Parts: sequence; structure tokens; C-alpha cells
Amino acid sequence: MNGKVYLVGAGPGVSGLLTLRGKEVIETADILFYDRLISPRLFSYASPQVEAVYVGKANRKHTMPQEEICRCLICAAREGKRVVRLKGGDPFVFGRGGEEAFALREAGIDYEIVPGVTSPVGALAYAGIPLTHRGLANSFTVVTGHQMSNDELLDWQNVWNRSDTLVILMGLEQWPEISQRLLLAGVPVETKAAILQAGSTALQKRVDGNLANIGIRSQKAGIHSPALVVLGEVAGLAPILDWQSSQP
Amino acid sequence: MNGKVYLVGAGPGVSGLLTLRGKEVIETADILFYDRLISPRLFSYASPQVEAVYVGKANRKHTMPQEEICRCLICAAREGKRVVRLKGGDPFVFGRGGEEAFALREAGIDYEIVPGVTSPVGALAYAGIPLTHRGLANSFTVVTGHQMSNDELLDWQNVWNRSDTLVILMGLEQWPEISQRLLLAGVPVETKAAILQAGSTALQKRVDGNLANIGIRSQKAGIHSPALVVLGEVAGLAPILDWQSSQP
Repeated sequence: MNGKVYLVGAGPGVSGLLTLRGKEVIETADILFYDRLISPRLFSYASPQVEAVYVGKANRKHTMPQEEICRCLICAAREGKRVVRLKGGDPFVFGRGGEEAFALREAGIDYEIVPGVTSPVGALAYAGIPLTHRGLANSFTVVTGHQMSNDELLDWQNVWNRSDTLVILMGLEQWPEISQRLLLAGVPVETKAAILQAGSTALQKRVDGNLANIGIRSQKAGIHSPALVVLGEVAGLAPILDWQSSQP
Repeated sequence: MNGKVYLVGAGPGVSGLLTLRGKEVIETADILFYDRLISPRLFSYASPQVEAVYVGKANRKHTMPQEEICRCLICAAREGKRVVRLKGGDPFVFGRGGEEAFALREAGIDYEIVPGVTSPVGALAYAGIPLTHRGLANSFTVVTGHQMSNDELLDWQNVWNRSDTLVILMGLEQWPEISQRLLLAGVPVETKAAILQAGSTALQKRVDGNLANIGIRSQKAGIHSPALVVLGEVAGLAPILDWQSSQP
């Protein structure tokens, strides 16, 4: 009999943001396929006999191509195993979970999606930045930096018009290009901005500024990937609402 | 000495989507202020001595005005209590968590934000709809139906241009008006759409269609609030990727 695959969102980084359901399926897993940036503490929930396979990606250098990850999930399930595919954030938000679900469906393998705290939500919460806030932001949009540095994919003027809060995931590397394009599209230089590194983890760091100066400031502060950029009025709330800086 | 307030996202409905950190703070809470649509099972994690106060809102009829909720949180913390404010979804995504954090900051009360699985992410996962999917959707935007039925707040053409996947929370009541406006703004009638009722809970229901017919179909299916509308190519994946319908 075939096993089952669980596509599990591990949350933004800190182990406490895993869901109860996520912990439950890790506890009973026979094999774990995991990405980079997964908290080591999550493995302590698994059985000592669990097989853990790293399939993460680092800087576009894919350890294992997506097609092969899909094949591995299917093979393990066909061996009757309980398979956990552990992803950062949420599997269906820039997590390629849809592609894995497709492959499993085609192969006739049962699966469950265990949603997680997606990184824009988790990282902003830990920085004290509400994605929406009465009077400041009534909607939010999430894109990736890769998308925003690709001219063909995006109408720059619309990107800004389109949202009250704009979150750009993996936007650090291409920030000089992205910010240039936003400015050329007419987004005001004084638009409030924050860059968040490794939100929710011990390496968490925040830099505040505006569209014009946030790049230089984050460089000076030594910010590195993974990081996300928040644009919009709510980014200006961080210095007030950051609840970790006031902790005893 | 003052107590502390925890603004906790309970997730989209099913108790298993609470985070480990959320459970931890509920376990040690002296008093719980909770919204409607919180799974009753979450209360079983609390101490038998916990005081539970309902402050939820039903159909715009506020049981307790927001300002009073803030005052209650502050008062309880000043009595030295460990206070948990339990909200559906995530506190910082249309949850008015920012307003509560502001009030606590002003009053000098320590607080922690415990992010949750926000309802668009959780409900879509349970329906088998990826928010992003290679080749179909490279970004997503989340708005509320209330906002979308208010002419002054939104440029309709831009709303559509602006996103690959558009999620409209609390969009059911005003759907006739919203869909009319989207059509007038030039959004194609055949745009794929899904309406999700009570995603992740036992009352979960999904209706598939397009911009033109989803309203009638959901009426026929007896869909009621809370429900959200998903627009975009990914909405068409639900019949394939819905993993609950294939469960034994």
C-alpha cells in the first residue's frame, strides 16, 4: 500500500511558529525531505529512526532539481512511507508546493497540505509591522525580487498603484535595480521602507528608511539574505511597534 | 508589576493550525479575550481557572468596540495578568492587531505578537489552490470585500492589473456589486474564480466557476459567511489539487 505525503509549511524560521498539525506529522514521519533555513529544533520532534534528506536550494544552485524532488517524494510514498516535505514559510506561497501536489496527484499518491505561517506574515509580525492597518493600508501584495527585476513580467507603475503595502521577497540582491525601476515608475522617494533579515530568528535584523536610502542603509548594516523589503506607510510603524526591542 | 499581553493568531479555523508558540501562551494565560470563529478546542489548552471573555464581532454588530477591547487588555495586564488576545487568522492581517499594539505601547504594557496562519493562506491550502504557481501566478494581493465595494478607495482597473492572484476576504455579501465593478473595469468574464466557505473547518465548502457565474453558483450551493473569493488562473487548479476530496 502506498504511503502518504505531507507538504508542511515550517513557518518563517523560529521553531515555535510551526503548527500543531505540522508537529504531529513530523512526529510520525518515516522520511523528511527538508529545505534550507529549517530550524534544527524541528528535527527533534521526529522519531530517532527518521531518515532526513536535504533538498534545499542555495543561491540558485539547486541541490536537487524540482523534478527530482517530486520523484523522490513519489518513490518514498510507493515504499509505503509516511513522507514529510518540510518547507520554509507556507508550501503554497512561492514554495512550489503546487508543483509537488500536481506530481503526487498524477502518480496517484495521497497527500495533505499543512499550511504554515508564510514568511511575509511572520517576519512582519516579529518586526512590529502590520500588513494592514486602519487608515494606512487596506490591502497588501506579495511579489518576489526575481519577478520585480524582470522587465517583461511586470508593469512597474501598476505594481505600486496596486497595493497599499508591498512586500518583496528575496528582494535584496536585485534591490539597486528594483528601487531604480520603482523610482522611474514614479513611486515617491520618501515612500517608507524597511528591510527585514531572517525575520523571527536569532539572526533577525531590521533597517528602516525610505525608497531612496534603504539600500545604502542596509548595506551599511551588513544585511544579507534571506531578507525581504516592505514598502508603504506601515513600514514606518516598526520603530514604534517593535515589541522585541522592549523586552526585558 | 504589570503582566504581559500576547496577540495570538489562531489560524483559519481548524485547531491544528494554531502554532506551538500560540498553544504555549494559551496554556499559561490568566485571561483570554477571544473573537468569534475560534475553535472551541483551543480553550482546552488553557488552565481550568482561565477567565474567557468573548469580544467578537458578528455582522458589523460589535459586541465590544475596539477601544474598549484595548482598555480591557490594558486593565488586565495592569492587574499583573498574563493576557492572551486570541484572533482568527493572523493579528496583523486585517486583524486590528496594530491598533491593539499601539494602545499597549502607549500604556507601557509589554506585548508579543504571535503570528498565525492567515486565512487566505490556510483556506486556499485546504482547497488545493496555490496562491502562487509557476507559469500561472507570480504574485498575490489580498483585499477585503468592504474595501472593494467602496468606490472611493479603489481603482478597479488597477486592482485587476495589479495581481496574478486576487483574494477578496469577506467578499460574499457585496459580491454582486464587486463582480459588477470588476466586469465594468474590463476584467474578463471567463476569469477563473472560486468561493471558499469556512476554509479548513468542518463547514468547509468550495464552489468553482468564473467571474460571471460564481455568484449564482455559490447562492445555489447555499454558501454563507465567512467566505472568501479567489480570482485568477490558480482558482482553476482546485478541482485537480483538492486533497481532501480524495481522502479515504
